[in-house]
Amino acid sequence: MMLPVSVRCQDSAATADARRVLSSLLSAGMKERGAYALLRELTREAPHRLSGSQGAARAVRLVQRMMDSLGFANVHREDIAVPHWERGAAERCTIVRSGARGIRLSVCALGGSVGTQTGGITAEVLEVRSFEELARAGDTARGKIIFFNRPMDASLVNTFEAYGGAVDQRFGGAAEAAKAGGVAALVRSMTLADDDVPHTGVMGYRDGVRKIPTAALGARSADRLSAMLHRSAMVTVRLVLRCQTLPDAPSANVVGEIAGSVHPENVIVISGHLDCWDKGEGAHDDGAGCVQALEALRLLQAAGVRPHQSIRVVLYMNEENGSRGGKGYAQDPRREKENHVALMESDRGGFAPRGFTVDGDSSLLSRVMRWQSLFDAVGAGTITQGGGGADISPMAQKGIPCFGLLPENQRYFDYHHSDNDTLDKVNPRELELGAIVEALLAYLLSESKI
Amino acid sequence: MMLPVSVRCQDSAATADARRVLSSLLSAGMKERGAYALLRELTREAPHRLSGSQGAARAVRLVQRMMDSLGFANVHREDIAVPHWERGAAERCTIVRSGARGIRLSVCALGGSVGTQTGGITAEVLEVRSFEELARAGDTARGKIIFFNRPMDASLVNTFEAYGGAVDQRFGGAAEAAKAGGVAALVRSMTLADDDVPHTGVMGYRDGVRKIPTAALGARSADRLSAMLHRSAMVTVRLVLRCQTLPDAPSANVVGEIAGSVHPENVIVISGHLDCWDKGEGAHDDGAGCVQALEALRLLQAAGVRPHQSIRVVLYMNEENGSRGGKGYAQDPRREKENHVALMESDRGGFAPRGFTVDGDSSLLSRVMRWQSLFDAVGAGTITQGGGGADISPMAQKGIPCFGLLPENQRYFDYHHSDNDTLDKVNPRELELGAIVEALLAYLLSESKI
Repeated sequence: MMLPVSVRCQDSAATADARRVLSSLLSAGMKERGAYALLRELTREAPHRLSGSQGAARAVRLVQRMMDSLGFANVHREDIAVPHWERGAAERCTIVRSGARGIRLSVCALGGSVGTQTGGITAEVLEVRSFEELARAGDTARGKIIFFNRPMDASLVNTFEAYGGAVDQRFGGAAEAAKAGGVAALVRSMTLADDDVPHTGVMGYRDGVRKIPTAALGARSADRLSAMLHRSAMVTVRLVLRCQTLPDAPSANVVGEIAGSVHPENVIVISGHLDCWDKGEGAHDDGAGCVQALEALRLLQAAGVRPHQSIRVVLYMNEENGSRGGKGYAQDPRREKENHVALMESDRGGFAPRGFTVDGDSSLLSRVMRWQSLFDAVGAGTITQGGGGADISPMAQKGIPCFGLLPENQRYFDYHHSDNDTLDKVNPRELELGAIVEALLAYLLSESKI
Repeated sequence: MMLPVSVRCQDSAATADARRVLSSLLSAGMKERGAYALLRELTREAPHRLSGSQGAARAVRLVQRMMDSLGFANVHREDIAVPHWERGAAERCTIVRSGARGIRLSVCALGGSVGTQTGGITAEVLEVRSFEELARAGDTARGKIIFFNRPMDASLVNTFEAYGGAVDQRFGGAAEAAKAGGVAALVRSMTLADDDVPHTGVMGYRDGVRKIPTAALGARSADRLSAMLHRSAMVTVRLVLRCQTLPDAPSANVVGEIAGSVHPENVIVISGHLDCWDKGEGAHDDGAGCVQALEALRLLQAAGVRPHQSIRVVLYMNEENGSRGGKGYAQDPRREKENHVALMESDRGGFAPRGFTVDGDSSLLSRVMRWQSLFDAVGAGTITQGGGGADISPMAQKGIPCFGLLPENQRYFDYHHSDNDTLDKVNPRELELGAIVEALLAYLLSESKI
């Protein structure tokens, strides 16, 4: 509920200025929908932007050109080396023994997985719901393909919480399966949608544990396989994956800014990550965050804002499988001459913004809460303590205040890391509102001492 | 931001009960997604449900069957007579003179419009942005087809406000055009989407003013026609509409309930409207509201709630073009033996709920605000003064507290009254959350004295 301004805002002159800026942002942004136009270009020119890929290199060049044409200052790349994993041509999972012989399950390799030998891996399937259940299975797991089938908990309102409660299977399933003597790991996709689209995402091996191939099953394929296992004691599948990890590749974060008019050495960062998985177009994850950052700066320029401190866009590379961009930015020697005031990231999809998280102490939170009525006016008054985002967390660890855009989250995992994550799933108004929230927050941070 | 419960909730025992009920609602609802299953059936069996149509009659039978199978008590119809307008087979708008001769514009008749004579109406087009501009045009308007082309104001965050600022053209454009000597009225569709899908909706004639045909143009067609008019002074179009108004038809509201265990004569209504336009499937408007009401009652039953007062589902007929259902319900003699405690409606789409409106005095609002933290837990803590809904407003006029579900609204007018309003635009989780908010509010109202 929107309380009267007087209840919440102590600094009324600053607030009056901020209201004028907000009005300009809305008037230009909601009519021009610049964020969506940029996203259309990004997803058309570089739909696949996995670290080390040609698409990622194309995206780096494209957004640098965008920043140049938008007239940002100090546009440059900051080089980093990134992991380079490739999916390869084939990925298949076929039932080879049981009543349903020959049936193909919908599957995709998890990012970082080793491939199978040429003929694939053929083995019996053992379904479990947790690492604990796998441990209890003991020797039964030996030689099997371990099928982790615990769904995200749909009863949780916050889908990120549901994701957090299931994603251990995706990240750590292969290592746990290998420790138990398994030969491969299949993981139910991290999704709440009722479809058969497999969702990829990063996995990790563990030192001293054999690397076995791992892949995600579409939710319906997971249900189907589970039903088969309940009908007949034994189901054998053949898993073929051609993925591989190549040597690290050169890549870059891309940076541009409006220089501060009073304290150019003080920097406020607005950011997203430029890389995405090689499924769909990374429209929500995180094309949305990238174009919102670009659009936020564009709108502030267009509104004639001359910020006291520098407002910078950083489009990080390699959030998905290594976070080298975020770490590289924090460690770059250029940072030594700069003073970062705050960083924000949008990496939770381009849905209608509901607020933002504040990563800092409670006094920071209460100072930011003074601005709540301004954000209420765009439906984004939910200001809550929480992490800002993976790319900016290395700067948060240095004690710098971080913020994360908090959009409506019900649909996010329907699209996340899958062929579903395409431009048509993004609403131009919802996307733009996120850019406006970021522009407003950057403006407020720039003009105030937080 | 979710404040600690203690800040807001005085009645902690009641709150603990309510939290248990909410937990049941979430656990069953979000896993079973009953609202979506019902909506799938409704949109498949009766996609077109305009008052007086066979589809509407089918919908009445279908939801009565649904209520019976869900085990609701006192399932019955309450008969009303409804307007019966039919679109007819043909609707066409063609450029017949100008450089773009022969080009078809995307068009659909507005609900309630008279048709054209067989050959259509052929006349020059005069574009205006407002009734005032039309008045200033004076005699220039005579014999012309008046083209109202003021778009919804995209810079407004609240899309309902943007709709409210433009819909005078759709409702009153024909009468204003006729008064100015025009022969037909074309109206830019009420939408914020960048597409060419025409959006229908109700229009009204005025006593003593000639009835002329009126139709909506898709947004891109409106832009195209406007561009032609700017290029060449004269553009002539032919408009063909076969729509007609038939005699009133028999129809019905459909009612079912859980009888109150202490005060069955006291009634809390959860509602939506069963009719919809003959474009799309009325999935958001207002299939969503209907199935949310059914699902809310189903979930309360499944949670074992024995409400103190009766909780009733009313699915109203004819919200779109006459509100006969809402008026009929309020006037029905059955109401005399009942005591309505509160009514709520969901008629703003099946999107993620953000809260609800309260139609009552400020003391009612502050009493309801005690429950805010409960609704915050499902992302629906925005409780604000405002109208409940068209169907329940006749009861609000009797002084009975009314409530309206308030979902996220950015996408609503992309779909509203058009072929875009189909099941695939509804997310099962967002829809279900709305049902859960309604169930929780009905429960709280039933157990308390507001």
